[in-house]
Amino acid sequence: MYKVGVVGATGVVGKEIIALLENRGFPISELRCFASAKSKGTNVKFCDRSLRAQEISNSALLGLDFVFFAAGRSVSKEFVPVAVQAGAVVIDSSSQFRMDEHVPLIIPEINFHKLKSHRGIIASPNCTATMLLLAIAPLYRYVPIKRIVLATYQAASGAGARAMQDLEEETRAVLEGKSYKRQIIPFPYAFNLFLHNSPIGEDLYNEEENKILLESRKILDVPNLLINASCVRVPTLRAHALAINVEFEGPIDPETAKRILQESPGIKIFEDLKQQRFPMPVDASGINDVLCGRIRRDVTRENTLDLWVVGDQLLKGAALNAVQIAEHLK
Amino acid sequence: MYKVGVVGATGVVGKEIIALLENRGFPISELRCFASAKSKGTNVKFCDRSLRAQEISNSALLGLDFVFFAAGRSVSKEFVPVAVQAGAVVIDSSSQFRMDEHVPLIIPEINFHKLKSHRGIIASPNCTATMLLLAIAPLYRYVPIKRIVLATYQAASGAGARAMQDLEEETRAVLEGKSYKRQIIPFPYAFNLFLHNSPIGEDLYNEEENKILLESRKILDVPNLLINASCVRVPTLRAHALAINVEFEGPIDPETAKRILQESPGIKIFEDLKQQRFPMPVDASGINDVLCGRIRRDVTRENTLDLWVVGDQLLKGAALNAVQIAEHLK
Repeated sequence: MYKVGVVGATGVVGKEIIALLENRGFPISELRCFASAKSKGTNVKFCDRSLRAQEISNSALLGLDFVFFAAGRSVSKEFVPVAVQAGAVVIDSSSQFRMDEHVPLIIPEINFHKLKSHRGIIASPNCTATMLLLAIAPLYRYVPIKRIVLATYQAASGAGARAMQDLEEETRAVLEGKSYKRQIIPFPYAFNLFLHNSPIGEDLYNEEENKILLESRKILDVPNLLINASCVRVPTLRAHALAINVEFEGPIDPETAKRILQESPGIKIFEDLKQQRFPMPVDASGINDVLCGRIRRDVTRENTLDLWVVGDQLLKGAALNAVQIAEHLK
Repeated sequence: MYKVGVVGATGVVGKEIIALLENRGFPISELRCFASAKSKGTNVKFCDRSLRAQEISNSALLGLDFVFFAAGRSVSKEFVPVAVQAGAVVIDSSSQFRMDEHVPLIIPEINFHKLKSHRGIIASPNCTATMLLLAIAPLYRYVPIKRIVLATYQAASGAGARAMQDLEEETRAVLEGKSYKRQIIPFPYAFNLFLHNSPIGEDLYNEEENKILLESRKILDVPNLLINASCVRVPTLRAHALAINVEFEGPIDPETAKRILQESPGIKIFEDLKQQRFPMPVDASGINDVLCGRIRRDVTRENTLDLWVVGDQLLKGAALNAVQIAEHLK
């Protein structure tokens, strides 16, 4: 039995982590929930108990075996080293340590063998990178990939609980002809979409797009992998969709790719060609597996396929991956 | 002064055509409005008058100079030849005649010189093709294009007024915890998205994707142009967005592309790099120009750029292009 901490326990990912720990029967003797100063005192449900979220502090992190961090980069920066120093193994869902050469960046289905190299911190990847890689990694093993062109359709949940509220409440206000002051989303979001608002560099790629590239290279261990991503936030709630164009180094046909993915963990072929039914965010929401459909030969270039991938951003994109990492560690 | 007919006058595109004819001062001595059997008798506003929509028939099409068809493919198939036979010039917004070799397919900013070859019918292109080509055609003239990978974010309006109603009403119902029976959209649409539901072929490309390819080839007069499109319907109301990856035959830098598009009609550079503001559907809705931002060098391949394009599906994507064609004809 383990003593487990969840930092960001009242956030949208933290709540999913706690629900997964319960539902998957993670052996827990004590669950300690941490929230921001604003949310401390909030009750968190776990196994018919009601736990009070406390504010994080150095002393509050003492005596834990595993700590999940799901509270954003600055909290991880300050308190992950404290938790490790106090003897815990940290599974960090923020981007803070993902590119640290001493921190394994893990998608268990792809590279759990790298877990053993950890020095107290294991990083869980960017949600979109995770979904992309669940589809791409098994194919890469069959034929190396030359280049990926990716367009994303990213849900509100990627920006947190308040972003989901912004979407719902602004949409309600628009439908009622009322006004609404958004909490976190910087642009109109009701019936609207926008290029991902993470900071852009001089080359006009934004941080989200760079994360996908750099984290994919690290996880696949292919330092020269090429990914051109265009990340877009769309008015859906909790599942991302990806239109993936993959150019391979050699031949691979859609049937082979489909068979490979059918046999791969964490991803599921979800389509009915006769009914023309392919994965949608409502199909993927609440589902552990990432869904893939319409694997198609790109008729404009040889050795190139299109894949359509949809996955729950809060589950495999975040909370589930973190909990799976802990399950491999225990 | 011209006698003008609008077929589909109570539909979402027909209404925009009538508003544009009024606002742009098209010289009209008589406006005859046609609607489906279900909508006949509906009042249509035009220049402070209220006109009654009538059901279309062979005799009702007599004596018109121009007829706009915006009622779908089957209506065009039956009545466009009747209107032409009766002496009118038809501007058809449906896909029925677009690929007919005797029918010019016109985006006035790009190929209005082909107008004069018409034999009574001029076709107005697919909305997404129009937006793509406004961005691509001026660049193609500077350097030929080798291949385009396109991902779309298409609004409800592309499927008509009832699709827009479906989106709004289903969203309202979901927010209120009620149920709603969709009229036309085959999949859940509130806070959801799906691959374009036009019929798919054996190669798993759908009709929308094929239209974009074939119509682009015809309009640019480049029979071997390569476009790999992934078309997706997203829960926005009336403006499409396009993530365009363009591989050129030779060098072109983002600054040059931007300058070329700044000088091109029908498209406008809309961005503020410091504020990280790029075009969004709410920016483009109700706007004649198609908006383009974040022209970026694709770091994964030489001679390749990414463009982000957003345009009003009902205006330049449909009604405005049709009215501009008529303006060139008069």
